[in-house]
Amino acid sequence: MQPHVVIIGGGFGGLNAAKALRGAPVRVTLLDRHNYHLFQPLLYQVATATLSPGDVASPIRWILRRAPNVRVLLGEVVVIDVQRRQVRLEDGTEIAYDYLIVAAGSSHTYFGHDEWAPHAPGLKTLEDALEMRRRILLAFERAERETDAARRQELITFVLVGGGPTGVELAGTLAEIARQTLRHEFQSIDPGRARVVLVEAGPTILPSFPPRLREAARSSLRRLGIEVREATTVTGVDAHGVLLRRDGIDDRLAAGTVLWTAGVTASPLLRTLGAPLDRAGRVMVAPDLSVPGHPEVFVIGDAAAAVDRDGRQLPGVAPVAIQQAQHVARGILRRLRGASTAPFAYRDKGNLAIVGRGAAIADLGWLRFSGVLAWIFWLFLHIFELIGFRNRLMVLVQWAVAYVTFQRSVRLITNVERPERYERSERSG
Amino acid sequence: MQPHVVIIGGGFGGLNAAKALRGAPVRVTLLDRHNYHLFQPLLYQVATATLSPGDVASPIRWILRRAPNVRVLLGEVVVIDVQRRQVRLEDGTEIAYDYLIVAAGSSHTYFGHDEWAPHAPGLKTLEDALEMRRRILLAFERAERETDAARRQELITFVLVGGGPTGVELAGTLAEIARQTLRHEFQSIDPGRARVVLVEAGPTILPSFPPRLREAARSSLRRLGIEVREATTVTGVDAHGVLLRRDGIDDRLAAGTVLWTAGVTASPLLRTLGAPLDRAGRVMVAPDLSVPGHPEVFVIGDAAAAVDRDGRQLPGVAPVAIQQAQHVARGILRRLRGASTAPFAYRDKGNLAIVGRGAAIADLGWLRFSGVLAWIFWLFLHIFELIGFRNRLMVLVQWAVAYVTFQRSVRLITNVERPERYERSERSG
Repeated sequence: MQPHVVIIGGGFGGLNAAKALRGAPVRVTLLDRHNYHLFQPLLYQVATATLSPGDVASPIRWILRRAPNVRVLLGEVVVIDVQRRQVRLEDGTEIAYDYLIVAAGSSHTYFGHDEWAPHAPGLKTLEDALEMRRRILLAFERAERETDAARRQELITFVLVGGGPTGVELAGTLAEIARQTLRHEFQSIDPGRARVVLVEAGPTILPSFPPRLREAARSSLRRLGIEVREATTVTGVDAHGVLLRRDGIDDRLAAGTVLWTAGVTASPLLRTLGAPLDRAGRVMVAPDLSVPGHPEVFVIGDAAAAVDRDGRQLPGVAPVAIQQAQHVARGILRRLRGASTAPFAYRDKGNLAIVGRGAAIADLGWLRFSGVLAWIFWLFLHIFELIGFRNRLMVLVQWAVAYVTFQRSVRLITNVERPERYERSERSG
Repeated sequence: MQPHVVIIGGGFGGLNAAKALRGAPVRVTLLDRHNYHLFQPLLYQVATATLSPGDVASPIRWILRRAPNVRVLLGEVVVIDVQRRQVRLEDGTEIAYDYLIVAAGSSHTYFGHDEWAPHAPGLKTLEDALEMRRRILLAFERAERETDAARRQELITFVLVGGGPTGVELAGTLAEIARQTLRHEFQSIDPGRARVVLVEAGPTILPSFPPRLREAARSSLRRLGIEVREATTVTGVDAHGVLLRRDGIDDRLAAGTVLWTAGVTASPLLRTLGAPLDRAGRVMVAPDLSVPGHPEVFVIGDAAAAVDRDGRQLPGVAPVAIQQAQHVARGILRRLRGASTAPFAYRDKGNLAIVGRGAAIADLGWLRFSGVLAWIFWLFLHIFELIGFRNRLMVLVQWAVAYVTFQRSVRLITNVERPERYERSERSG
């Protein structure tokens, strides 16, 4: 029997590991608790009603349909038992492995303030995105029904916590929705008077970009009427807004909607590995991305605290996960041939962020540019990287329609409540 | 101040009433508990992963953006007070009316067996459709993980209760998903061995069609490998299947998934009208569709028990609701001019049902046909009747891709559980 490689997670890391092992002399089992791979770079467009969930997600089973040595199973791994070399699923099923690739990803964190979670949804899963969409659209609907003027303005004030690419992208799109999409559709409120505030605790938004591009992004945000508050810490979140602190001075901001894009923490599953973790819960991997003391277990993507040749922490982005997946797959095949693994080295191809219609920034290392050209580059790159012809086509069509009509037509407030009648079977099933 | 017309419901009836009153010398308020109009004839395609929710729903606010005398409010009417001429919303807000149009629709019913609901979801709302989709896709995933052969076959057995157009459409699509879409993607199971059983309590499926067309539909279903059981009553539903009775003989059918398209009941809101209701909970309206004793209140669509000139009950379909909406709007304008209302007469333009790829039946009264031509006719009519250029384009593209590739790519198992962290705010918000 061929060696069995188990992959935990069908994100960028896990999926690319499976692809790299396609046709190799190993049996592969890929486990994910969802039946789909999520293209996370476009998730904010689901949250802002531009794209449908189906446009940014593809069934893992379908993506890997031409990899006969890869078995795809829907299931959630709850324990990794490195001693017995097996993983345990939520229903107690145990699956033995010869090699294990842990690509379990991350979720958002409130830095110890979990009580903020109900008031400030994050953006990691499709469900998160639909919850954000629901809140954004509901805010305008509630404002239209509200008779008190102050409360009305509070309802159409949006605070985005976290000035990374996702926060900037969300802020830009939110402003466009208010100023253009919804402009003529309300009678009691003027959606154009919506306030969008982007809060960043660090000294600058988009810290991973060079200063000149950051300044370009700031101007684009300003043109969209977005307030950017840097070096400002969130010290409280509740149903009616946030408490901010800057230079030791506290300031309360009344806001009906708070969206969280600030912190990530690795999957709690990693704790069952018994390996040392960093502060963000990631596994401190060896240079070849294996777990120290367990050369048959590899950790990649957001789950791994890997460093550059220069000792710098690698960012939690798709290109890192993809390159690590390919490296680890090659490493396993080398081991099978009796060779030893090599240390991983990341080849940084660049950094992109979109601010709004016709505005983006691009840092390719050898070339840095912003504006319409960067925006077009962003669009094409994302269409190109999407998985599946259908998804590419659908996103292209949706973007074209949105560009021409200013509409974002997936403006549905769904999941207002779970139908009670299904709840019983939910638990029993 | 102009007279105030309040419309309850943004379905086919309510929406078309608002459109018919656009620009008329009245103020209109349209209330719906969702922010979108749902194109219900295509809802089964959301349940079977062909279309996205956003493809079959459009924001009501956007549809009515060019009707300045129409105000759209998101809200659920819980009481109609015909004495004080006002409606009350879920938060206690009261809205007074001069004329009221009740287009509150219907939901599915289990004929007194609400305990079946958790095991047999119906198909009336977007949430219902996503729940059906989740169960259908999950059934195959669970079967792939199942080691017991009998249980495996049970998991890929699907029972559809109700042989009307929706039941037939669902059965046809389900069979195609199993035999074509999922065909090569599993290792432990052969999705082609999935069993689809369509159960109808009455003597025949599609009772509203002439016998020759019913026979054509039956052959199409048979070709797809679907078992059709007519004159068969469901006497029990649980997590492992259904209990059936035919000619007094009981029969247990083991099935992992049961889908319900059998009965509808009108909105419970109608009970607050104080008017006589029929057995299905619909209001027994006067010939002009007003509530007897309350000439300022009209009931249309699924909420009304209206009869034909020949005394036959009108079916709960979109064309009836649309014609009634236009009739009632004209009636209100006649009243305002001092004229009296006219009795409603339904102009039946025909009846259509789709069975599967290239198979449909059409009864236009003067012309009856089936097969590929009826199928093409069905496709074009539905594209044409969809609201909004974007939705038409998206559905067209999705259908074209699905037709060519056999794929149904909105194959996402979402809403597996509500993220717990949001639940708290749900209640407080």
